[in-house]
Amino acid sequence: MTAPSASVAEHMRASVLHAPGDVRVDTVPVPRLDPDQVLVRIAAVGVCGSDVHYFHEGRIGSFVVEQPMILGHESAGTIVAVGAAVSPDRVGERVSIEPQCACRHCDQCKHGRYNLCTSMEFYATPPIDGAFAEYAAIQTDHAHPIPDTMSIEAAALCEPLSVGIWANQKAQTTPGSSVFIAGAGPIGVIAAQVARAFGATRIIVSDPVAERREVALRFGATEVVDPMVVDVATADYEVDAFIDASGAEPAVRAGIHAVAPAGRVVLVGMGADEIRLPVSRIQNRELVVTGVFRYANTWPIAIRLIAAGLVDVDALVTGRFGLDEVEAALDAATRPDTLKAVVVP
Amino acid sequence: MTAPSASVAEHMRASVLHAPGDVRVDTVPVPRLDPDQVLVRIAAVGVCGSDVHYFHEGRIGSFVVEQPMILGHESAGTIVAVGAAVSPDRVGERVSIEPQCACRHCDQCKHGRYNLCTSMEFYATPPIDGAFAEYAAIQTDHAHPIPDTMSIEAAALCEPLSVGIWANQKAQTTPGSSVFIAGAGPIGVIAAQVARAFGATRIIVSDPVAERREVALRFGATEVVDPMVVDVATADYEVDAFIDASGAEPAVRAGIHAVAPAGRVVLVGMGADEIRLPVSRIQNRELVVTGVFRYANTWPIAIRLIAAGLVDVDALVTGRFGLDEVEAALDAATRPDTLKAVVVP
Amino acid sequence: MTAPSASVAEHMRASVLHAPGDVRVDTVPVPRLDPDQVLVRIAAVGVCGSDVHYFHEGRIGSFVVEQPMILGHESAGTIVAVGAAVSPDRVGERVSIEPQCACRHCDQCKHGRYNLCTSMEFYATPPIDGAFAEYAAIQTDHAHPIPDTMSIEAAALCEPLSVGIWANQKAQTTPGSSVFIAGAGPIGVIAAQVARAFGATRIIVSDPVAERREVALRFGATEVVDPMVVDVATADYEVDAFIDASGAEPAVRAGIHAVAPAGRVVLVGMGADEIRLPVSRIQNRELVVTGVFRYANTWPIAIRLIAAGLVDVDALVTGRFGLDEVEAALDAATRPDTLKAVVVP
Amino acid sequence: MTAPSASVAEHMRASVLHAPGDVRVDTVPVPRLDPDQVLVRIAAVGVCGSDVHYFHEGRIGSFVVEQPMILGHESAGTIVAVGAAVSPDRVGERVSIEPQCACRHCDQCKHGRYNLCTSMEFYATPPIDGAFAEYAAIQTDHAHPIPDTMSIEAAALCEPLSVGIWANQKAQTTPGSSVFIAGAGPIGVIAAQVARAFGATRIIVSDPVAERREVALRFGATEVVDPMVVDVATADYEVDAFIDASGAEPAVRAGIHAVAPAGRVVLVGMGADEIRLPVSRIQNRELVVTGVFRYANTWPIAIRLIAAGLVDVDALVTGRFGLDEVEAALDAATRPDTLKAVVVP
Repeated sequence: MTAPSASVAEHMRASVLHAPGDVRVDTVPVPRLDPDQVLVRIAAVGVCGSDVHYFHEGRIGSFVVEQPMILGHESAGTIVAVGAAVSPDRVGERVSIEPQCACRHCDQCKHGRYNLCTSMEFYATPPIDGAFAEYAAIQTDHAHPIPDTMSIEAAALCEPLSVGIWANQKAQTTPGSSVFIAGAGPIGVIAAQVARAFGATRIIVSDPVAERREVALRFGATEVVDPMVVDVATADYEVDAFIDASGAEPAVRAGIHAVAPAGRVVLVGMGADEIRLPVSRIQNRELVVTGVFRYANTWPIAIRLIAAGLVDVDALVTGRFGLDEVEAALDAATRPDTLKAVVVP
Repeated sequence: MTAPSASVAEHMRASVLHAPGDVRVDTVPVPRLDPDQVLVRIAAVGVCGSDVHYFHEGRIGSFVVEQPMILGHESAGTIVAVGAAVSPDRVGERVSIEPQCACRHCDQCKHGRYNLCTSMEFYATPPIDGAFAEYAAIQTDHAHPIPDTMSIEAAALCEPLSVGIWANQKAQTTPGSSVFIAGAGPIGVIAAQVARAFGATRIIVSDPVAERREVALRFGATEVVDPMVVDVATADYEVDAFIDASGAEPAVRAGIHAVAPAGRVVLVGMGADEIRLPVSRIQNRELVVTGVFRYANTWPIAIRLIAAGLVDVDALVTGRFGLDEVEAALDAATRPDTLKAVVVP
Repeated sequence: MTAPSASVAEHMRASVLHAPGDVRVDTVPVPRLDPDQVLVRIAAVGVCGSDVHYFHEGRIGSFVVEQPMILGHESAGTIVAVGAAVSPDRVGERVSIEPQCACRHCDQCKHGRYNLCTSMEFYATPPIDGAFAEYAAIQTDHAHPIPDTMSIEAAALCEPLSVGIWANQKAQTTPGSSVFIAGAGPIGVIAAQVARAFGATRIIVSDPVAERREVALRFGATEVVDPMVVDVATADYEVDAFIDASGAEPAVRAGIHAVAPAGRVVLVGMGADEIRLPVSRIQNRELVVTGVFRYANTWPIAIRLIAAGLVDVDALVTGRFGLDEVEAALDAATRPDTLKAVVVP
Repeated sequence: MTAPSASVAEHMRASVLHAPGDVRVDTVPVPRLDPDQVLVRIAAVGVCGSDVHYFHEGRIGSFVVEQPMILGHESAGTIVAVGAAVSPDRVGERVSIEPQCACRHCDQCKHGRYNLCTSMEFYATPPIDGAFAEYAAIQTDHAHPIPDTMSIEAAALCEPLSVGIWANQKAQTTPGSSVFIAGAGPIGVIAAQVARAFGATRIIVSDPVAERREVALRFGATEVVDPMVVDVATADYEVDAFIDASGAEPAVRAGIHAVAPAGRVVLVGMGADEIRLPVSRIQNRELVVTGVFRYANTWPIAIRLIAAGLVDVDALVTGRFGLDEVEAALDAATRPDTLKAVVVP
């Protein structure tokens, strides 16, 4: 363990979740660094649905907040100190944080699937602290340098962008592909943007909310559909892939029927633990159904796509909040007119 | 259209299904050949569960027997006549019949997934006749030559063997793999044999019937388990792949919990149209769930595996029946002590 | 065989290669149709380097022009007649011609690799006639319908575009990829355009001719390099893939050194039969070296990419020639200021 | 850094290469352990061709022995001490050593291709010491536990077996595959054994030495061929894959011509830096040419294949030598009647 360099304070302000509905700015110790870590002064943190869920419920599935915890995992900032094994030259770099720390030794890690590491430590997943704070520590290789031309907010949004990239990789989206995306929340809209960047030429987004459908059209969708009006299951879309970003059982069931033989079904949205699925359809068409659990090796792609202008995540930001306004940011994140609320510590 | 050569009779005996439960030997015309077809004098036909299902119910899903139809699709024999575009040199060849005829022009066919051709014509699937008959016609490239050393019954059983190969290909069974197979009927047992031929070193087969478990142990399983005694879902098998050959909802649900992160779930058994699946498990472990719809390009592999002694399908035959004993063969196929009943026209 | 419908003449004008350097407009019979073919009134034909090669040399490798043959294989037009097995509704469709006819029955075809069919018949490859003519026949599924918004010249250029797509598929170009392309002739420039459409964010094109480098920059390259000035082999490009569109031994050898470990090397340009390759580099970095032989299943992608504006092939056309100007078109195709000459019958 | 536990001596005997041709048993310090390492008392070390090469030449390519170094990298033994971060429960485990240490942080490592890590430290590759010694240190996850039933020599030979596994994985050997292997030295023979374990049903091995061909037939080959008698290039083998284990230019060139369209060429043998390859053949058949650089994630497979009896590496051992007989062992390794010499410290 190494203390941050002399110029970094011993304590910092952080927005701490004490109990469901109880989030407060506290003064806490600045994280101490492992030898392979860097300390980042946080400049922007996006608010994710999981942050909202922990705030209200205090848990997601088997992950339970049992002690005070800092939320926030879509973050970026500037390196201000480095661990003993990291080159001091990194101090001053603007970086996007990939908020996960895998063991690097297990079978999953060594096959390149480090997101499936069973020893994973992930920001803002109990008991690991997140980034609604002045500083956060991360392994040096997960502090990804960004070009000067990239905004720090875009750097923070490499995290949800990575979800969209991972989903499209599993959907095997390629040039000329057709993709059906259920749900036009932030992840659905990002998935549509990414599908376009991957060369998809037909991108259908469904959402029951008209203004969300409008947003989808601005960010990559070539068509939108109101699933309350159109029966997606019988509309003969015959797409190459279906990405569910809704977590809603009816959307998942209908979407599977929109997929052509040999097509892919990628479940991104978190909803019920179990869903009744049309297995005979999956069998007769040899569909491939899988899910997304975070991501692996997506940051370099995310940064290049933003830098090349192939996706626009800056435009997703609909509100900014200070560290002492985290509760307001969490509230905003649930409103249909909000795409992405950002906390600026 | 070309008539068979002079030496072949105009009419033949065939076992015809007229209505559920009503199967009779009739005299019917010998099939006329398209230019690219061959006529095969049938020497052996395995009885499949789908034959039994059509016999009793007159339908499988949306496929309904609406006119008299010949059952049987696991067949082999000797070429006795050829269509206009086929070399007469093929007459006399012993062949295994791949009982499917795809359009060869659609997108699925041209990508090599001809089993998913939407214009597929398949033996013993209404309204296409099968092979419980003295003769059957098939495209020349789907009449696969077999070596002299291979029995004609083994040649017929290339069909269920192909299902086992296709299932293991989708399961990505490779040397050192661990596989969990639910159901020790003919397909489960064949899947276990194939898993071993693919190099799997841990092959667990579950079946509630003790004698079926015994059979599984003889044919490839390294372990067997009684799912009435062991809770498969919580037994921490952590296998690389789960192949369901049972079609039973509890078996499918439990089997999914037996799979390690990034593992495959291959649904072979036909059961309910819909099953409640643990989607959060599929998501959190990024499992890949898919199904098997027949097979493509498996015959050359099947023939080589049999010829090399890597699988033994001859030993699966537990009874032989004449063309006028088809009803008895269909009955036998449902008994737990029967692995594979074979009709010898 | 079926004659074209009454409205189509029995004879047509065609540009026929009689001997090296001897190409003339002759009156020849309109092709008769097989049942699964359509007859296309040709409206545009791009000139390819292979046409030029046959014109001058009378052969390419083991393919020798031994009887008068019509050149041209980048073609499009309107269906004017159909074979017996094709719906007459197709008459009037504007189509892009995929100029290859595979057997559909061999092992390669049935695995979806029909370009590797050993019985392949390909336009303008001896002894098969091409499309520098008023009419040409093609299997119905290889006459790909195009949208009204697409120009007929763009439709013709789906052929070289397909080469670029196939090359990038083999290069595994994906969003964020870096690609090094040697040669800024038509194929190199198209490969660069396609790389961009596939999401590549670093696309380096090398060519010793300054004006060709300028063209590359207009059509997708993010950087260009003069290989006479820069030593590509030692420049540490460390790209994900190298596509050779030059056929030049020094370019191939240098390009291999530009590839990062686990990267791909795709040889598109035809040059010497043998090249001295740095095998220890291929081994130590586990590079994957392969080649491109035409393409398979690329037309739907090509049409969608053009229709979506993701590539621009219309802008590649630098000259138009009548059927009696084919020699001039062939000459033009060799000039550095020509990207693509088009014959309009 | 942690000292080994009290029961381990401070010094050990090791066979040290001082200069080309000069190898002597010295007393050297027992390696000190990093926190994530274990100390293994070495019980068996296979002799590899690279050991012989370093012994005679003092270098392989750019790797030069510039200071005294311990050779040997095919090793196994018993854990006698553990680093600070490793459970002491591991002491006493019999393990096979995967003799490589990657950085785990670079792009190659994080994609699961850790063998391509540019910071790799590998046993007996200058300046890293190997295992011709009483003890060696290795990261805990690269000390793979073996079952009680496995001999310690078989455990040591997991290393060359891994080369054979990796080669067959790259060759995409699957059940029913045909494979041509050039060279019946230890690696060729092991590759043949592994091909059989992977289900290949036609395994042709070529070698000009009759007794080596005999050995190949005992260990997996279904056919052997003398390349001095048969012209491999024109013999129409049309195999699915060619594995070169000879490093000889004529063998590589001929073998490429033995491969069917879409087949794989895997270069394992180290020979000349450059070889003149038939690129037009590679292009016209879309062959995939690649190389093998060590291996990744092969140990679990190797151990399971040995334990299941699917390969037999014990039978490869043709001689055993003490630590003070390393020079004799290195000499033996070059004799045609030696398959694998083993040093027993």
